[in-house]
Amino acid sequence: MTKYQIPNATIKRLPLYYRYFQFLNDSKRDKISSSELAKAVQVDSATIRRDFSYFGSLGKRGYGYEIAPMLEFFKELLNQSQTTKVALVGVGNLGSALLNYNFSQTNNIQITAAFDNNPSLINTVVNGVRVYNVDDLATELTTQEIDVVILSVPVASAQKVADQLVEAGVKGILNFTPIRVATPDTVRVHNVDLANELQTLIYFLNNYS
Amino acid sequence: MTKYQIPNATIKRLPLYYRYFQFLNDSKRDKISSSELAKAVQVDSATIRRDFSYFGSLGKRGYGYEIAPMLEFFKELLNQSQTTKVALVGVGNLGSALLNYNFSQTNNIQITAAFDNNPSLINTVVNGVRVYNVDDLATELTTQEIDVVILSVPVASAQKVADQLVEAGVKGILNFTPIRVATPDTVRVHNVDLANELQTLIYFLNNYS
Repeated sequence: MTKYQIPNATIKRLPLYYRYFQFLNDSKRDKISSSELAKAVQVDSATIRRDFSYFGSLGKRGYGYEIAPMLEFFKELLNQSQTTKVALVGVGNLGSALLNYNFSQTNNIQITAAFDNNPSLINTVVNGVRVYNVDDLATELTTQEIDVVILSVPVASAQKVADQLVEAGVKGILNFTPIRVATPDTVRVHNVDLANELQTLIYFLNNYS
Repeated sequence: MTKYQIPNATIKRLPLYYRYFQFLNDSKRDKISSSELAKAVQVDSATIRRDFSYFGSLGKRGYGYEIAPMLEFFKELLNQSQTTKVALVGVGNLGSALLNYNFSQTNNIQITAAFDNNPSLINTVVNGVRVYNVDDLATELTTQEIDVVILSVPVASAQKVADQLVEAGVKGILNFTPIRVATPDTVRVHNVDLANELQTLIYFLNNYS
């Protein structure tokens, strides 16, 4: 199959597989049974087999998976041999926490620039990342060749900043604000809606216990 | 259909619909066309219609949706007439940001207790929420009748704390740590994996642009 037929749900599980093979490799393991893998990543074996099948024949039935080649495979698939630079806009509580979050612990991702409009934050350094004036967004993103941005500004300015990001040529936005921002089709937005996650969990508990 | 047949993807969109009808109601709107709703929540009309169909006939084709009854419907469905109390374990950078995050802005959810093992945090108050000693987890959760917990502890203690939560009778865990914690089937865990979200976005940008 071509990559264009890979389901979104599968794609969302790829970093999880990658991370777990990384962990196994660090633990000097050689291979893992499909049942042990299923238990560790909490995805059932049939789903794992189907996920892997989109990328050709990975692993043999009844034998399990060899760790080194699997790790290599996912590393290349997820482009982990090169670091992806990411910017963050909105250095409030959540933004600061994200600047301090160790994305590179498990993935080859690094936040290399932050932006805010608060004069007391501009030109400070948070966890090694410089905070720029949000007015310099377009210039800095272009100079630093960054096209993926984490959006953690207050709701009231979410759409305005999203417009600026689009204008600056950004290709992807990880939106932590509780509203859905409108962007052209050329810009991909993934939403991480914290209240929504909590609400969904509570809905399940109230209705399926 | 019974509620047991509602797809997870639909359930995850319910808080979004609720929040948007809340916004429309606050804006004194009476009704909304299905195309405007689709555009605002960024879910296509056919999916919205299918989502709503699980709950019987909401709205009329070609007429759109009346806001007040829709809001009432979702409010009841999501149990928004009563506040759900939630606890948070792990008051680090991310935990503090979550304590400061305004969950009640859009949902009837309130974090009412926090826990940590850091003596300099214990008995402090963060955004109105008292931080308790993690040793008092079971007692406090029982006394305060809390059975939903946000887990934002360091990776190294994630499974240990998850075990304590299970022991304390917790029913649902919103897991912000980058590992999957093992729990019995009676405890529901939803994972919010920030590095995963960013990695998935980057994968899409690298492969589908």
